[in-house]
Amino acid sequence: MGCDVSALNTVQFSNHTGYRQWKGTRVSAEEITDLWTGLRQSYLDTFDMMLSGYVPGAAAVEAVGTIAKELRAKNNNYKKGGGFFWVLDPVMGDNDKLYVADDVVPAYRGLIQHADLILPNQFEAELLSEVKITDAASLRHAIEVLHTKFHLPHIVITSVSMPLGESQSSSTTTTRTMSVVGSTRTSTGKPRLFKIRFPVFDCYFSGTGDMFAALMVVRMREAVANLGNDVGETASWVSGDEVDALDLPLAKAAEKVLASMHEVLSRTCEGMTEEMERTTGLEKMGTEEEEAKRLHLLRSKAAELRLVRNLGCLRNPKVEYWAERM
Amino acid sequence: MGCDVSALNTVQFSNHTGYRQWKGTRVSAEEITDLWTGLRQSYLDTFDMMLSGYVPGAAAVEAVGTIAKELRAKNNNYKKGGGFFWVLDPVMGDNDKLYVADDVVPAYRGLIQHADLILPNQFEAELLSEVKITDAASLRHAIEVLHTKFHLPHIVITSVSMPLGESQSSSTTTTRTMSVVGSTRTSTGKPRLFKIRFPVFDCYFSGTGDMFAALMVVRMREAVANLGNDVGETASWVSGDEVDALDLPLAKAAEKVLASMHEVLSRTCEGMTEEMERTTGLEKMGTEEEEAKRLHLLRSKAAELRLVRNLGCLRNPKVEYWAERM
Repeated sequence: MGCDVSALNTVQFSNHTGYRQWKGTRVSAEEITDLWTGLRQSYLDTFDMMLSGYVPGAAAVEAVGTIAKELRAKNNNYKKGGGFFWVLDPVMGDNDKLYVADDVVPAYRGLIQHADLILPNQFEAELLSEVKITDAASLRHAIEVLHTKFHLPHIVITSVSMPLGESQSSSTTTTRTMSVVGSTRTSTGKPRLFKIRFPVFDCYFSGTGDMFAALMVVRMREAVANLGNDVGETASWVSGDEVDALDLPLAKAAEKVLASMHEVLSRTCEGMTEEMERTTGLEKMGTEEEEAKRLHLLRSKAAELRLVRNLGCLRNPKVEYWAERM
Repeated sequence: MGCDVSALNTVQFSNHTGYRQWKGTRVSAEEITDLWTGLRQSYLDTFDMMLSGYVPGAAAVEAVGTIAKELRAKNNNYKKGGGFFWVLDPVMGDNDKLYVADDVVPAYRGLIQHADLILPNQFEAELLSEVKITDAASLRHAIEVLHTKFHLPHIVITSVSMPLGESQSSSTTTTRTMSVVGSTRTSTGKPRLFKIRFPVFDCYFSGTGDMFAALMVVRMREAVANLGNDVGETASWVSGDEVDALDLPLAKAAEKVLASMHEVLSRTCEGMTEEMERTTGLEKMGTEEEEAKRLHLLRSKAAELRLVRNLGCLRNPKVEYWAERM
């Protein structure tokens, strides 16, 4: 997508954990801090944006937070507001299940006030806001809390599966849909809410959260630049109060990201079917249990997102799902 | 370039060592082996090609060699010859200076017989062949030794700076040139030698060896595929004896790689001049020694290869330096 990226790997694993078995190591908080010291001492601490994803443990989360705070302080010395933008994906769990240590939750609660955009899923939004999300009203309330209590400029809640007041006709169609719900606060901390509904594939993928976050970084920057006004010079790229929810750079960015994802997932799904037919045609071996494990591993591999061979979907997706008012 | 790549990081450093200071860690031999075990146990050991570069220490070199040997054995079970191709960059030193531990040299000497293509610089070719390279004749002899003693199918010696029998007219031009020298063995182990001369920039870059190696992987595969014959099905993609040195896939690949490199280095050089003018215009600080160090760091940063913003140079370079007979 044209971005020069420096990666600080928080793990080196043989494969993602969806396979249910893996080898490799996590980095320690000390190693994160050490690498940052290395960058700083050689004048390599000039980043415009930062994306943080899975971070192993509360101490490592703190270490990542320190990098973000120092990058912001440094850039504020040289530039006007808008000199640094932190996209924080608070990876903690999903579907009411925590998959990090308990102390990671308060670590993120103490840090998100320094982020520009957070990308929690529904469960993570509940953990951060301490609001149980059960319907459109509680969802709105959770977002209000995140805007006001944590001063968060931009929020996107990924993968909201409950109905958000769709018309009768759409809820009776056979295709299952989900939504992302986003908001950029006004100058008085009020939410400007939008939702984007998209169809769900009948496939299990891993890494869609990482893909969403990575694409949001590029598309948010692009959407702000495309405005051609001075929002890119304002702190955290927050649009003036006159801008409607559906015209927010955040909404434009999310539309493009979802378009890319839909195309990549669609092609991954097609390829997956083919690959499974080919590999499961091979002779069976071992006990039933072993065979079930083997099938799970082959299916996990077949479901790996087909990114490289579908670069066009990332670069020039056709937007088909648009931001709507909530 | 369209390749789906899995990276096994052998270091995680804050920056390359040309800065003369860095932080971070090297992986151990155990970690390399462990990651490979992780891949194997989940059916993720299906690679068509492997590129190995800097590997920290003799034990780690052995661990990488084991991966290559097992990948070849596995692919040979499923496919005809040509099922796996190992590009080995035996990173050991440069300009008569070793920058790895002494025992790395015998570790590579024991392994290169399993590689398909090696990419030593002149000094590394001397270490592997135990032939001192001082002129075109000794260079040819070193390559003969590598072909026969180690059964190496393909060799490219990068950055040969001595004259290789150029005509009087070209050696009196003002532009400094260097050459790469390559060879694919015949069925009887004889070299098929070619050289490609290219102009040298008056800039110090880091990472050109890695760039050369990475591009050779893609271009070698492409050159073999473009032939449209069955050389891709033969072991190690060795062309029949009737193929002339200048028509070898290896020569075609190297031409494209050098074209890409020349374009990227040219743009890096331009950008570097601009960036140095901008940053050195800032106020001086500290002692003379501190200022010299600061300048070295800023220059190292300015010389970082501008790859991402010049993808077109990687994808569609204009070939201007052609393989010549030696």
